Amino acid sequence: MQTPHGVVQTPAFMPVGTQGAVKSVTHRDLHDLGDGVGAEIVLGNTYHLYLRPGDALIARAGGLHRFIGWDRPILTDSGGYQVFSLADRRRVSEEGAEFRSHLDGSTHLLTPERATDIQSHLGSDIAMVLDECVATPATVEVARAAMERSVRWAARARERLVQIKDDPAAAGVLATNPGQAQFGIVQGAIDPALRTESVQATVALGFDAYAIGGLSVGEPPDVTYDIVAHTAPQLPGDRPRYLMGSGMPDDLVECVARGVDLFDCVLPTRNARNGQLLTRSGPIAIKNARYAEDPSPPDPECRCYTCRRYSRAYLRHLYVAGEMTAATLNTVHNLYFYLDTMRSIREAIMLGTFEKLRSEFHQTFSRRSHLNA
Amino acid sequence: MQTPHGVVQTPAFMPVGTQGAVKSVTHRDLHDLGDGVGAEIVLGNTYHLYLRPGDALIARAGGLHRFIGWDRPILTDSGGYQVFSLADRRRVSEEGAEFRSHLDGSTHLLTPERATDIQSHLGSDIAMVLDECVATPATVEVARAAMERSVRWAARARERLVQIKDDPAAAGVLATNPGQAQFGIVQGAIDPALRTESVQATVALGFDAYAIGGLSVGEPPDVTYDIVAHTAPQLPGDRPRYLMGSGMPDDLVECVARGVDLFDCVLPTRNARNGQLLTRSGPIAIKNARYAEDPSPPDPECRCYTCRRYSRAYLRHLYVAGEMTAATLNTVHNLYFYLDTMRSIREAIMLGTFEKLRSEFHQTFSRRSHLNA
Repeated sequence: MQTPHGVVQTPAFMPVGTQGAVKSVTHRDLHDLGDGVGAEIVLGNTYHLYLRPGDALIARAGGLHRFIGWDRPILTDSGGYQVFSLADRRRVSEEGAEFRSHLDGSTHLLTPERATDIQSHLGSDIAMVLDECVATPATVEVARAAMERSVRWAARARERLVQIKDDPAAAGVLATNPGQAQFGIVQGAIDPALRTESVQATVALGFDAYAIGGLSVGEPPDVTYDIVAHTAPQLPGDRPRYLMGSGMPDDLVECVARGVDLFDCVLPTRNARNGQLLTRSGPIAIKNARYAEDPSPPDPECRCYTCRRYSRAYLRHLYVAGEMTAATLNTVHNLYFYLDTMRSIREAIMLGTFEKLRSEFHQTFSRRSHLNA
Repeated sequence: MQTPHGVVQTPAFMPVGTQGAVKSVTHRDLHDLGDGVGAEIVLGNTYHLYLRPGDALIARAGGLHRFIGWDRPILTDSGGYQVFSLADRRRVSEEGAEFRSHLDGSTHLLTPERATDIQSHLGSDIAMVLDECVATPATVEVARAAMERSVRWAARARERLVQIKDDPAAAGVLATNPGQAQFGIVQGAIDPALRTESVQATVALGFDAYAIGGLSVGEPPDVTYDIVAHTAPQLPGDRPRYLMGSGMPDDLVECVARGVDLFDCVLPTRNARNGQLLTRSGPIAIKNARYAEDPSPPDPECRCYTCRRYSRAYLRHLYVAGEMTAATLNTVHNLYFYLDTMRSIREAIMLGTFEKLRSEFHQTFSRRSHLNA
C-alpha cells in the first residue's frame, strides 16, 4: 500500500496511537521492537486529537507527522466511534453527532464535513469517513437506518474532501497532506443483505479504498468471520480492505484468510499495560506468582527486545512494583507478537503456505476466551 | 574506575534505579540517550530490593545484574538512608535499625552485617556500608555519636565482607559477585573536626574506596561545598570519592572542583516525571502554556534522542494528556543532560580547561533555586 509517507506491506497491523503516541513506547521502540520488526503505520484518534491539543494547533505545527515526530504513514479514524461510545453524552441527527467532551463537558458537533476538515488538518495519509455506529444487537430496521445514513454521510465527506483538494483556502482548511487518501466504510451490522447494499452504495461514491466497520462490537467471532467472508470479496480487489477495530490474534489469521489487508486493535497495547503477554502458546498474566522465579523470557521463541533480554521473573517484579517500564517492555513484546505474526502471514502468502501457517497457528494459539479484550 | 562489570570513566554520575529499573526508561534507552551518550553505571536501592522482590530471590536468579538484565556496573546503597527516612517507622540501636516495611508494615532489622549480606546476594560491583544518618540540623553531640557509631558499624561491615569473601558457604551467604568492592562512608554532619576524625577512623578500616555521606540533607549549598572541600582531599587520592545523594547540576561542577568522582541523585529522573526539563539556560516546566505551540526542542543545543526528534509543543501535549511516554522522553533528556555534563567535565579535565567550563557553566546554568529538588 503506497502512501505519501511511504509503503506499507500488507496485510498489516496498525498499533493504536490514541493521543499522538502509542502508549508507553517511544517511536524508537516502534521502529525496532526487536529483530528488525517495526511498525510501518500507526493509527491516530481524531476524537482525542481534536479535543487535545486541537487539530488547528496540529495544522499550524505542520500536521500530525511533524507534530509527533513520526515520518511513517498514519491513518486517522473519523472520531465517530469514540463519539458513539459516549452514550448519554451524545445526540445524533442527520446533520451529525453532537457530543460533550469527556475532558471538560464542552459541547461539539461532529459532522461528516467537520470530520473531514479535522483530518485534513491532521494530514494523515489515510482519512476515514464519519459513519454511524449502532449498538449491538440492533434490529434490522435500526441497522438499515444507520447504514443508509452512513452512505449519505460518506457522500458528504467525499464531496467535502474534493472541495478541500480543489481549493483548500476556499474551503477554509489548512490541509497539511495534499496526498491524503480517504476510505469509505461499509456498515450493515450482521445482516448480509444490508452489507451488500452498503458495499454497492459506498463503492459507487468512489473512495480510495474501503473499510468494514461495525464488527467486533459484541457479536460472536463466528458471526464476525461470516460477515467478513461475505463482505470483503465484494470490495474492489485492487485496493486494501481494512477491518476496523478487530484484532484478536485469531482475527488476524482468520480475516486475512477472508480477504482483509489492514487491522487495528488496542488489545496488544492495552493488555500489555494490564500485564498480559501474548505468546505462541497463549496469553500469560505476568503478575501470577508462578512467574516470581521463572528465568525464562515471556516466549522462548520470540525475538523481540523484551524476550531477548528479560525474564518473566523480572517482568513480574516490574509489574508488581508498579514500574512504568513494565508497560513499556510488555507493550514492546505484544506489538512484536502482532507485527511478527503479520510478517509471517505475508511470507506464507508469498510462499503459498498460508493454510499451513493458519492451521499451525490455531494448534498453538487458540485462547481467544482467555484474552482480556 | 575498574569493576567486575567493566570500567567507569570518572567523574561519573549514576542514574538511580530504585527497584531494579531506572524509572520510565529501558536499558536500551540508558545505553543510548543520544549521540553515543549512555549510562556506564547505575545505582540500586538495597532497601527496596530487599523488601521486593527480595535479595534471596535475586541471589537465586544469579544476582542483580542477571535479574534485571543489565551487564554494566551497579552500585548498591546500604538501605540505611531509606530506613532512616522512615522516621517514626524505625528504631535505632547499637545493633542496627529496626523498621517497619512501607509495603506491608512487617518488621525488619537492618544491621551492618545484614546490609552486607543483602548486598552480597545482590552482587553489586560496589557495596556501601551501613551508616547512621542524622536529621539536620543536628547538635555536635548528636553528630558525633552518629559518626562514631557509623565507624563501629563500618568495622562490623568490613569484617562481615571479609568473612563472606573468605568462605561464603560458611557465612551462609550466596555471594553472586566475588569481585564486589566495599566503600566506607565518612559522616560528621557539617562539623569539619568531626569529618576529619571520621575520615581517619574510616580509612583506617581499609575499604576499597570512600564516600562522603550526610550532606545535601537540607544545609545551604555553600556549607555542602565547604564540607566537601574540607573532606575530599583527606581521602586517598588513588581511589574514587563518592558524594552520596548530591546532584543538582551545579553540584556536579562544584564538587568535581573539590575532588569528587562519583555522584548519584534522583533529581534528573524524578523532575523529568514531574515535567521539568533541564537545559543549558536553566530548567523549564514543560506543562507551561507558553510551550503549547513552541516548535523548538527542549534545548536547541542538546543532542539527546528527545531533543533531536521532538518539540516542546509535543512534549507538553504528552505531559498534559498524561501519556507515559512524556516521562520516558523527559527522563532521556534529563539523564543526557547529566551524563553529557559529566562527559564535558572529563574532557575539560583532560584538556586542562576545567576552570573555563566551570565559569561558563555558571554563566548559563545557575538556577538552583528554580529546581524542584
